Amino acid sequence: MNTNTCIYSEDEVFPDFLVGKERAALERWNNGDPLGYLEISALDVVYFDPFSAGRLDGLEKLTQLYESIRGQVHVDRYEMLHPKVQAGSNMAVLTFNLISHEGNDCQQWNCTEVYRQEANGEWKIIQTHWSFTQPKFQ
Amino acid sequence: MNTNTCIYSEDEVFPDFLVGKERAALERWNNGDPLGYLEISALDVVYFDPFSAGRLDGLEKLTQLYESIRGQVHVDRYEMLHPKVQAGSNMAVLTFNLISHEGNDCQQWNCTEVYRQEANGEWKIIQTHWSFTQPKFQ
Repeated sequence: MNTNTCIYSEDEVFPDFLVGKERAALERWNNGDPLGYLEISALDVVYFDPFSAGRLDGLEKLTQLYESIRGQVHVDRYEMLHPKVQAGSNMAVLTFNLISHEGNDCQQWNCTEVYRQEANGEWKIIQTHWSFTQPKFQ
Repeated sequence: MNTNTCIYSEDEVFPDFLVGKERAALERWNNGDPLGYLEISALDVVYFDPFSAGRLDGLEKLTQLYESIRGQVHVDRYEMLHPKVQAGSNMAVLTFNLISHEGNDCQQWNCTEVYRQEANGEWKIIQTHWSFTQPKFQ
Protein backbone atom coordinates (compact mmCIF):
# COMPACT_ATOMS: atom_id res chain seq x y z
CA MET A 1 0.00 0.00 0.00
CA ASN A 2 1.25 3.45 -0.89
CA THR A 3 1.91 5.19 2.42
CA ASN A 4 0.76 8.44 0.86
CA THR A 5 -2.74 7.06 0.43
CA CYS A 6 -5.30 9.36 2.00
CA ILE A 7 -6.95 6.98 4.40
CA TYR A 8 -9.28 7.89 7.22
CA SER A 9 -9.28 6.53 10.72
CA GLU A 10 -12.86 5.29 10.48
CA ASP A 11 -12.00 3.03 7.53
CA GLU A 12 -12.18 -0.65 8.42
CA VAL A 13 -8.73 -1.19 6.95
CA PHE A 14 -7.19 1.59 9.04
CA PRO A 15 -5.57 -0.54 11.78
CA ASP A 16 -3.90 -2.74 9.15
CA PHE A 17 -2.79 0.36 7.25
CA LEU A 18 -1.14 1.86 10.34
CA VAL A 19 0.49 -1.40 11.45
CA GLY A 20 1.79 -1.90 7.92
CA LYS A 21 3.30 1.59 7.93
CA GLU A 22 5.01 0.87 11.25
CA ARG A 23 6.30 -2.54 10.14
CA ALA A 24 7.78 -1.09 6.95
CA ALA A 25 9.73 1.53 8.94
CA LEU A 26 10.74 -1.02 11.60
CA GLU A 27 12.08 -3.45 9.01
CA ARG A 28 14.27 -0.74 7.52
CA TRP A 29 15.39 0.19 11.06
CA ASN A 30 16.27 -3.45 11.74
CA ASN A 31 18.61 -3.31 8.77
CA GLY A 32 20.44 -0.21 9.95
CA ASP A 33 18.36 2.31 7.97
CA PRO A 34 16.70 5.00 10.14
CA LEU A 35 15.21 6.84 7.14
CA GLY A 36 12.01 4.79 7.19
CA TYR A 37 11.07 6.29 10.53
CA LEU A 38 12.31 9.78 9.70
CA GLU A 39 10.26 9.86 6.49
CA ILE A 40 7.03 9.17 8.41
CA SER A 41 7.75 11.48 11.37
CA ALA A 42 6.26 14.98 11.55
CA LEU A 43 8.27 18.15 12.06
CA ASP A 44 6.96 18.45 15.63
CA VAL A 45 7.61 14.80 16.57
CA VAL A 46 8.57 14.16 20.19
CA TYR A 47 10.56 11.09 21.19
CA PHE A 48 11.52 8.97 24.21
CA ASP A 49 13.92 6.02 24.36
CA PRO A 50 15.79 4.34 27.26
CA PHE A 51 19.14 5.85 26.27
CA SER A 52 18.31 9.56 26.01
CA ALA A 53 18.45 11.89 29.02
CA GLY A 54 14.86 13.01 28.44
CA ARG A 55 12.32 13.80 25.73
CA LEU A 56 13.74 14.86 22.36
CA ASP A 57 11.69 17.54 20.63
CA GLY A 58 11.45 17.93 16.89
CA LEU A 59 12.46 16.17 13.70
CA GLU A 60 15.84 17.88 13.56
CA LYS A 61 16.97 16.44 16.91
CA LEU A 62 15.53 13.03 16.06
CA THR A 63 17.39 13.07 12.74
CA GLN A 64 20.67 13.86 14.54
CA LEU A 65 20.11 10.96 16.92
CA TYR A 66 19.15 8.48 14.23
CA GLU A 67 21.94 9.49 11.89
CA SER A 68 24.43 8.93 14.73
CA ILE A 69 23.49 5.24 14.84
CA ARG A 70 22.87 4.63 11.13
CA GLY A 71 24.17 1.20 10.12
CA GLN A 72 24.60 -0.01 13.71
CA VAL A 73 21.32 -1.87 14.19
CA HIS A 74 21.10 -5.41 12.79
CA VAL A 75 18.06 -7.27 14.04
CA ASP A 76 17.78 -10.79 12.57
CA ARG A 77 14.08 -11.21 13.29
CA TYR A 78 11.34 -9.64 15.36
CA GLU A 79 7.91 -10.35 16.72
CA MET A 80 5.39 -7.51 17.01
CA LEU A 81 3.00 -8.69 19.71
CA HIS A 82 -0.68 -7.71 19.80
CA PRO A 83 -0.50 -4.42 17.89
CA LYS A 84 -3.52 -2.30 18.85
CA VAL A 85 -4.81 0.85 17.17
CA GLN A 86 -7.12 3.31 18.97
CA ALA A 87 -8.25 5.98 16.54
CA GLY A 88 -9.88 9.40 16.74
CA SER A 89 -10.89 11.44 13.74
CA ASN A 90 -7.42 12.68 12.78
CA MET A 91 -5.15 11.05 15.34
CA ALA A 92 -4.47 7.46 16.35
CA VAL A 93 -2.32 5.63 18.85
CA LEU A 94 -0.60 2.35 18.00
CA THR A 95 0.80 0.26 20.86
CA PHE A 96 2.60 -3.07 20.86
CA ASN A 97 5.26 -5.15 22.54
CA LEU A 98 8.26 -6.08 20.45
CA ILE A 99 10.81 -8.86 20.72
CA SER A 100 13.97 -8.24 18.71
CA HIS A 101 16.42 -11.07 18.10
CA GLU A 102 20.06 -10.51 17.22
CA GLY A 103 22.03 -13.73 17.22
CA ASN A 104 21.35 -15.36 20.57
CA ASP A 105 20.36 -12.10 22.24
CA CYS A 106 16.85 -10.80 22.47
CA GLN A 107 15.47 -7.51 23.72
CA GLN A 108 11.91 -6.89 24.80
CA TRP A 109 10.31 -3.52 24.20
CA ASN A 110 7.19 -1.53 25.00
CA CYS A 111 6.23 0.86 22.20
CA THR A 112 3.74 3.70 21.77
CA GLU A 113 3.42 5.54 18.46
CA VAL A 114 0.99 8.44 18.05
CA TYR A 115 0.06 9.25 14.46
CA ARG A 116 -1.68 12.37 13.13
CA GLN A 117 -3.25 12.89 9.72
CA GLU A 118 -1.65 15.90 8.07
CA ALA A 119 -3.37 18.44 5.81
CA ASN A 120 -2.26 16.50 2.69
CA GLY A 121 -3.87 13.30 3.99
CA GLU A 122 -0.65 11.56 5.04
CA TRP A 123 -0.40 9.96 8.48
CA LYS A 124 2.77 10.93 10.34
CA ILE A 125 4.22 10.06 13.74
CA ILE A 126 4.03 12.92 16.24
CA GLN A 127 5.14 10.94 19.29
CA THR A 128 7.35 7.87 19.74
CA HIS A 129 8.00 6.17 23.09
CA TRP A 130 10.30 3.14 23.25
CA SER A 131 11.10 1.56 26.60
CA PHE A 132 12.47 -1.78 27.77
CA THR A 133 9.94 -4.25 29.12
CA GLN A 134 10.93 -4.80 32.78
CA PRO A 135 14.36 -3.16 32.39
CA LYS A 136 15.52 -4.30 35.82
CA PHE A 137 15.37 -7.90 34.58
CA GLN A 138 17.01 -7.39 31.17
CA MET B 1 -11.64 23.64 36.78
CA ASN B 2 -14.32 20.99 36.73
CA THR B 3 -12.86 18.03 34.84
CA ASN B 4 -16.30 17.33 33.40
CA THR B 5 -16.25 20.64 31.55
CA CYS B 6 -16.84 20.11 27.84
CA ILE B 7 -13.69 21.61 26.41
CA TYR B 8 -12.39 21.29 22.87
CA SER B 9 -8.88 20.71 21.72
CA GLU B 10 -8.83 23.88 19.65
CA ASP B 11 -9.51 26.03 22.72
CA GLU B 12 -6.54 28.19 23.69
CA VAL B 13 -6.79 26.95 27.26
CA PHE B 14 -6.72 23.30 26.22
CA PRO B 15 -3.05 22.51 27.01
CA ASP B 16 -3.44 24.00 30.50
CA PHE B 17 -6.68 22.08 30.97
CA LEU B 18 -5.05 18.76 30.08
CA VAL B 19 -1.92 19.39 32.16
CA GLY B 20 -4.13 20.39 35.09
CA LYS B 21 -6.10 17.17 34.77
CA GLU B 22 -2.88 15.15 34.76
CA ARG B 23 -1.40 17.02 37.73
CA ALA B 24 -4.55 16.49 39.79
CA ALA B 25 -4.42 12.72 39.21
CA LEU B 26 -0.65 12.61 39.77
CA GLU B 27 -0.91 14.44 43.08
CA ARG B 28 -3.47 11.92 44.34
CA TRP B 29 -1.19 9.12 43.08
CA ASN B 30 1.75 10.64 44.94
CA ASN B 31 -0.30 10.32 48.14
CA GLY B 32 -1.12 6.65 47.64
CA ASP B 33 -4.49 7.17 45.93
CA PRO B 34 -4.76 5.57 42.46
CA LEU B 35 -8.40 6.59 42.01
CA GLY B 36 -7.50 9.91 40.43
CA TYR B 37 -6.03 8.11 37.43
CA LEU B 38 -8.68 5.41 37.31
CA GLU B 39 -11.46 8.02 37.26
CA ILE B 40 -10.00 9.68 34.16
CA SER B 41 -9.11 6.48 32.29
CA ALA B 42 -11.39 5.07 29.58
CA LEU B 43 -12.72 1.51 29.53
CA ASP B 44 -10.37 0.63 26.67
CA VAL B 45 -7.26 2.19 28.25
CA VAL B 46 -3.95 0.48 27.50
CA TYR B 47 -0.99 0.80 29.83
CA PHE B 48 2.78 0.28 30.01
CA ASP B 49 5.09 0.63 33.02
CA PRO B 50 8.62 -0.70 33.76
CA PHE B 51 7.36 -3.38 36.16
CA SER B 52 4.71 -5.15 34.08
CA ALA B 53 5.55 -8.03 31.73
CA GLY B 54 3.92 -6.25 28.80
CA ARG B 55 1.01 -4.01 27.83
CA LEU B 56 -2.05 -4.15 30.10
CA ASP B 57 -5.33 -3.87 28.23
CA GLY B 58 -8.48 -2.39 29.71
CA LEU B 59 -9.66 -0.51 32.78
CA GLU B 60 -10.39 -3.70 34.71
CA LYS B 61 -6.78 -4.90 34.54
CA LEU B 62 -5.46 -1.42 35.30
CA THR B 63 -7.77 -1.22 38.31
CA GLN B 64 -6.46 -4.55 39.62
CA LEU B 65 -2.88 -3.33 39.26
CA TYR B 66 -3.50 0.04 40.89
CA GLU B 67 -5.56 -1.39 43.73
CA SER B 68 -2.69 -3.80 44.50
CA ILE B 69 -0.40 -0.86 45.27
CA ARG B 70 -2.92 1.49 46.87
CA GLY B 71 -1.36 3.31 49.81
CA GLN B 72 2.20 2.32 48.90
CA VAL B 73 3.29 5.39 46.95
CA HIS B 74 4.43 8.41 48.97
CA VAL B 75 6.15 11.02 46.83
CA ASP B 76 7.22 14.09 48.81
CA ARG B 77 7.54 16.39 45.83
CA TYR B 78 7.74 16.24 42.08
CA GLU B 79 8.77 18.28 39.08
CA MET B 80 6.86 17.91 35.82
CA LEU B 81 9.34 19.05 33.17
CA HIS B 82 8.29 20.69 29.92
CA PRO B 83 4.78 19.24 29.57
CA LYS B 84 3.77 19.36 25.89
CA VAL B 85 0.33 18.86 24.39
CA GLN B 86 -0.18 17.94 20.70
CA ALA B 87 -3.87 17.95 19.88
CA GLY B 88 -6.08 16.67 17.08
CA SER B 89 -9.81 17.24 16.91
CA ASN B 90 -10.85 14.65 19.49
CA MET B 91 -7.54 13.19 20.68
CA ALA B 92 -4.43 14.68 22.23
CA VAL B 93 -1.07 13.45 23.44
CA LEU B 94 0.58 14.86 26.56
CA THR B 95 4.28 14.12 27.13
CA PHE B 96 6.62 15.15 29.93
CA ASN B 97 9.57 14.11 32.03
CA LEU B 98 8.96 13.71 35.74
CA ILE B 99 11.27 13.80 38.73
CA SER B 100 9.77 12.26 41.86
CA HIS B 101 11.43 12.80 45.23
CA GLU B 102 10.89 10.51 48.19
CA GLY B 103 13.20 11.36 51.06
CA ASN B 104 16.70 11.43 49.61
CA ASP B 105 15.77 9.23 46.66
CA CYS B 106 14.65 10.50 43.31
CA GLN B 107 13.33 8.71 40.26
CA GLN B 108 13.29 10.10 36.76
CA TRP B 109 10.49 9.16 34.39
CA ASN B 110 9.43 9.49 30.77
CA CYS B 111 5.65 9.74 30.38
CA THR B 112 3.20 9.65 27.47
CA GLU B 113 -0.53 10.06 28.05
CA VAL B 114 -3.00 9.88 25.17
CA TYR B 115 -6.39 11.46 25.85
CA ARG B 116 -9.61 11.09 23.84
CA GLN B 117 -12.74 13.20 24.07
CA GLU B 118 -15.70 10.94 24.82
CA ALA B 119 -19.26 11.38 23.53
CA ASN B 120 -20.24 13.25 26.72
CA GLY B 121 -17.44 15.79 26.21
CA GLU B 122 -15.13 14.42 28.91
CA TRP B 123 -11.46 13.83 28.11
CA LYS B 124 -10.22 10.41 29.21
CA ILE B 125 -6.88 8.61 29.04
CA ILE B 126 -6.80 5.81 26.47
CA GLN B 127 -3.06 5.10 26.67
CA THR B 128 -0.49 5.53 29.45
CA HIS B 129 3.23 4.79 29.04
CA TRP B 130 5.56 5.26 32.01
CA SER B 131 9.24 4.35 31.68
CA PHE B 132 12.41 5.15 33.58
CA THR B 133 14.66 7.78 32.03
CA GLN B 134 17.94 5.95 31.25
CA PRO B 135 17.07 2.89 33.36
CA LYS B 136 20.57 1.45 33.05
CA PHE B 137 21.86 4.37 35.10
CA GLN B 138 19.14 4.45 37.78
